[in-house]
Amino acid sequence: MEETKSLIEKLRGLKYQNMYNNDFFLTWEKSDDELFSVFTVADILRKMRENNISTRIFDSGLGISVFRDNSTRTRFSFASACNLLGLEVQDLEEGKSQIAHGETVRETSNMISFMADVIGIRDDMFIGKGNKYMHEVSEAVQEGYKAEVLEQRPTLVNLQCDIDHPTQCMADLLHIIHHFGGVENLKGKKIAMTWAYSPSYGKPLSVPQGIIGLMTRMGMEVCLGHPEGYDLMPEVEEVARKNAKESGGKFTKTNSMREAFENADMVYPKSWASFAAMEKRTALYGEGKLDEIKTFEKELLAENAKHKEWQCTEEMMKLTKNGKALYLHCLPADISGVSCKEGEVAASVFDRYRELLYKEAGFKPYIIAAMMFLSKVKDPVKTFEALKSSNKPRFSGK
Amino acid sequence: MEETKSLIEKLRGLKYQNMYNNDFFLTWEKSDDELFSVFTVADILRKMRENNISTRIFDSGLGISVFRDNSTRTRFSFASACNLLGLEVQDLEEGKSQIAHGETVRETSNMISFMADVIGIRDDMFIGKGNKYMHEVSEAVQEGYKAEVLEQRPTLVNLQCDIDHPTQCMADLLHIIHHFGGVENLKGKKIAMTWAYSPSYGKPLSVPQGIIGLMTRMGMEVCLGHPEGYDLMPEVEEVARKNAKESGGKFTKTNSMREAFENADMVYPKSWASFAAMEKRTALYGEGKLDEIKTFEKELLAENAKHKEWQCTEEMMKLTKNGKALYLHCLPADISGVSCKEGEVAASVFDRYRELLYKEAGFKPYIIAAMMFLSKVKDPVKTFEALKSSNKPRFSGK
Amino acid sequence: MEETKSLIEKLRGLKYQNMYNNDFFLTWEKSDDELFSVFTVADILRKMRENNISTRIFDSGLGISVFRDNSTRTRFSFASACNLLGLEVQDLEEGKSQIAHGETVRETSNMISFMADVIGIRDDMFIGKGNKYMHEVSEAVQEGYKAEVLEQRPTLVNLQCDIDHPTQCMADLLHIIHHFGGVENLKGKKIAMTWAYSPSYGKPLSVPQGIIGLMTRMGMEVCLGHPEGYDLMPEVEEVARKNAKESGGKFTKTNSMREAFENADMVYPKSWASFAAMEKRTALYGEGKLDEIKTFEKELLAENAKHKEWQCTEEMMKLTKNGKALYLHCLPADISGVSCKEGEVAASVFDRYRELLYKEAGFKPYIIAAMMFLSKVKDPVKTFEALKSSNKPRFSGK
Repeated sequence: MEETKSLIEKLRGLKYQNMYNNDFFLTWEKSDDELFSVFTVADILRKMRENNISTRIFDSGLGISVFRDNSTRTRFSFASACNLLGLEVQDLEEGKSQIAHGETVRETSNMISFMADVIGIRDDMFIGKGNKYMHEVSEAVQEGYKAEVLEQRPTLVNLQCDIDHPTQCMADLLHIIHHFGGVENLKGKKIAMTWAYSPSYGKPLSVPQGIIGLMTRMGMEVCLGHPEGYDLMPEVEEVARKNAKESGGKFTKTNSMREAFENADMVYPKSWASFAAMEKRTALYGEGKLDEIKTFEKELLAENAKHKEWQCTEEMMKLTKNGKALYLHCLPADISGVSCKEGEVAASVFDRYRELLYKEAGFKPYIIAAMMFLSKVKDPVKTFEALKSSNKPRFSGK
Repeated sequence: MEETKSLIEKLRGLKYQNMYNNDFFLTWEKSDDELFSVFTVADILRKMRENNISTRIFDSGLGISVFRDNSTRTRFSFASACNLLGLEVQDLEEGKSQIAHGETVRETSNMISFMADVIGIRDDMFIGKGNKYMHEVSEAVQEGYKAEVLEQRPTLVNLQCDIDHPTQCMADLLHIIHHFGGVENLKGKKIAMTWAYSPSYGKPLSVPQGIIGLMTRMGMEVCLGHPEGYDLMPEVEEVARKNAKESGGKFTKTNSMREAFENADMVYPKSWASFAAMEKRTALYGEGKLDEIKTFEKELLAENAKHKEWQCTEEMMKLTKNGKALYLHCLPADISGVSCKEGEVAASVFDRYRELLYKEAGFKPYIIAAMMFLSKVKDPVKTFEALKSSNKPRFSGK
Repeated sequence: MEETKSLIEKLRGLKYQNMYNNDFFLTWEKSDDELFSVFTVADILRKMRENNISTRIFDSGLGISVFRDNSTRTRFSFASACNLLGLEVQDLEEGKSQIAHGETVRETSNMISFMADVIGIRDDMFIGKGNKYMHEVSEAVQEGYKAEVLEQRPTLVNLQCDIDHPTQCMADLLHIIHHFGGVENLKGKKIAMTWAYSPSYGKPLSVPQGIIGLMTRMGMEVCLGHPEGYDLMPEVEEVARKNAKESGGKFTKTNSMREAFENADMVYPKSWASFAAMEKRTALYGEGKLDEIKTFEKELLAENAKHKEWQCTEEMMKLTKNGKALYLHCLPADISGVSCKEGEVAASVFDRYRELLYKEAGFKPYIIAAMMFLSKVKDPVKTFEALKSSNKPRFSGK
């Protein structure tokens, strides 16, 4: 419990006040203090749960989830985070709902929010759409709150959009921080965020974009590697460049996986579709040209297949710092010979890092809960001290 | 909190005892005192939530929902109401379940109710079916309770049937009461419940029927307007006539939208299918004549299209009391040029009333919670006073 | 409350310590003391709920359900059990999730379990699969727990596999124990577990197998009756034989329904597919031979139809002890003239036993809750005494 105490002390020193009653869309919209507040609150919530102290701050209330793409881990992470704080999850299934019947976003957002404290949205499939949709929802409930339609303003958590995947990337970073024994030890370290071959098509850009947008703030050398044509959104690369400069880190690019892995402390090899491709696909959907989409996707798969050498093999790993770089992935990974014939990573590499990968994923529920906590709780330090002293058990059968 | 105190005093004066361990099917099966008890309890629950006082009377227990038609707002209203009182929602999805496999209503009702405190049902598509089904469920659990199969008798809330939509219409009425500063101010006011054109087919009759069945009890002039052939169920019109007489109000009918709007204090323009049409359609379904249904629905759409002038335009609104009647709708509305080419209401009219419409909808979760509260709580006044004095916060991070 | 007290005393005398942090797969993997602990805890939980004492031992936490086959009653029983103890249900819908996308069981099991206290799985359709899958999940989370990926080890409850249906059969047995006034009165009684005709195809073997595997431990004569070719898994019959010997009971087999019913104290007539048939079908699925499966299922239905005389008629019931045997079924039953033209049981027989059948089903939520309780709570007696003395109401509106 000493640990919890010192974490609360740490929190006391940070500026997180702007997060109150606010949303979490993109990490680069937040100050360093705000990011570290999320990490600190996540660690406190975890410590308290490990010590069987209830962190249930809501006696009742709803956490609403909107998933516009399949999801297991994010769905369960959100549900776990809500449950940890005392919110009941209500999933807005747009199929079931009347949204299909031409209801406007503004209206639906208010209709589902009368007793909603938080809203989590995943909408990552179409460039220029997901983040925009989240802002529409946020503005709608803000209006509703101002107009006293809503008694509370539900705060939004971006569970993955077309631009960023903040809950994933911050879970990745918290994992790295713990792994290397503190954020101060990250300065000067090299992380390779590289493309990797996958037989499955059109994975979102949000993870690589989120990684270069976040890791460049920690004074690290962030090396983005991908075959020609697999570029990310230029504006996000610009963010990475700016962050690197400010943090005293580096942001480099290469079209060689070997070069990216060379002497890296961490590697994050993962497949994605190119920005240009996703944009074209989005346009085709917009025009409802389904046949053309099919043809186009075939082309893209064929293009992917030209780059099968972009695989995280044992040989590639040998290139990294002492051959022992920390392998990172958001999961699920396309594992060669396991989940597919040829994929992002060799089975032997993946196996060696499995437990670490699971631990990496384990930070996500706490990151989400921390984002909610900081957006809802007026005086986090006071609330944590109250929880600590009341010392109510999460499970009374221990 | 003074307000809460006086509301509890008000409740003390009302006769609601017959609602205990009872269901809520149709508003006209309830006494005036019982309706006003629902309104009063709804207001108390809302005030307490606004003052961050927990109204969680259930430490555990299930609220079961059965939706036989798509729904966003009602689904979330029910979930919010259950959550506010401490019940966890379990949705009976008849697709997933074995009901499809020829299980009887009696059996299913008991099988899902071993730990169920309330059941909410929406079944509004077929004339003569929905309300009947709810009664079958109610009788089944009553039997089960008597036979000690069930430890508690789950009470039913009608979330919309073929005859009435009590949670919607009572939310509408509570909105009106607050808008006009008290029920006493409603006497003599005119409300126009009119048909309106919609390109979508076969909307239920439950809202217009519920409105004429309920508003006629408040001493208002309720004017029902629709094109020839769009009649409601005759027995419900009979109820409205009777209510009007008893309450000193009026129930009038017209085939002219202009006449209905003339000098109205409130207007409720909404599309519905005719009773006769719904009956025929129900019969065709019964006989499984799917092709004939298609043809029939085409005919009905064509018939609808003959009445496009039944639209709530600015010009129509000018006819109302000082051109400023309160526009009402259960949402979602078919807004001309927004959700459809031509529909129930002009965009400019809808926009002007948007916030009020959202507030109208906001009463629904509290109406549902109040119905549950009065059906489960033995001594509501005592329970409210206990909640007030224990003063447990709903959210302890405020 | 005296009753609760003596039940707690009874529990004190039983050896259940090995159930702590353990799973529940098959009844014959558990000691008699462990089975009776489940019954005793189930009775205590029920008594406490009847006396409006909260048994909510979890302030937060998830209970995860995985249903690989349709289910109403088991789904609601699991949800009720979780809710009774304070866990929120999260359903892993494999359709929605990314499991379809080739994710391994090991990975998914950990990804959904970061805050999961229990996992309930139903997987009964394919011989040699369901129970195996449950063990894979159990090993996966055990590994994750050891590796500190998971803070707690979620314990598994078998909600029906290809071999056993422990929650059903133990609910059946607890019902019998209460019906006959104590387990000691079961010695020497005869129970007929027989096949019965059903027009629907391929029902799982888990119920008849679970029944012969469990009831043979109570010193009863368990008579398994079915037409030639409808054999159960040989290893389970072996278990039954062994149990009967040890308990001083009997395990007999016959191909005559009349012989099985002859002088029986209890009858459990229920349809199932033969072990050999299920095995072949599983193989065909494995080979993706969908057309052959269709043909094969037709053959099996034709085979079924040869045994329509296997029906629980009034005449058959006359053969039982004083014509008054206790009729048992897991529900839903195929009732002749009700849910099908010809089926497992005559309507008049079913009607006479309906209330008892519903009560039988009513034990299931408590059996599941008891299994969870014993797998999670370190000192059940202490915890029950604490719950009793704190005396927190489940519902504070009574």
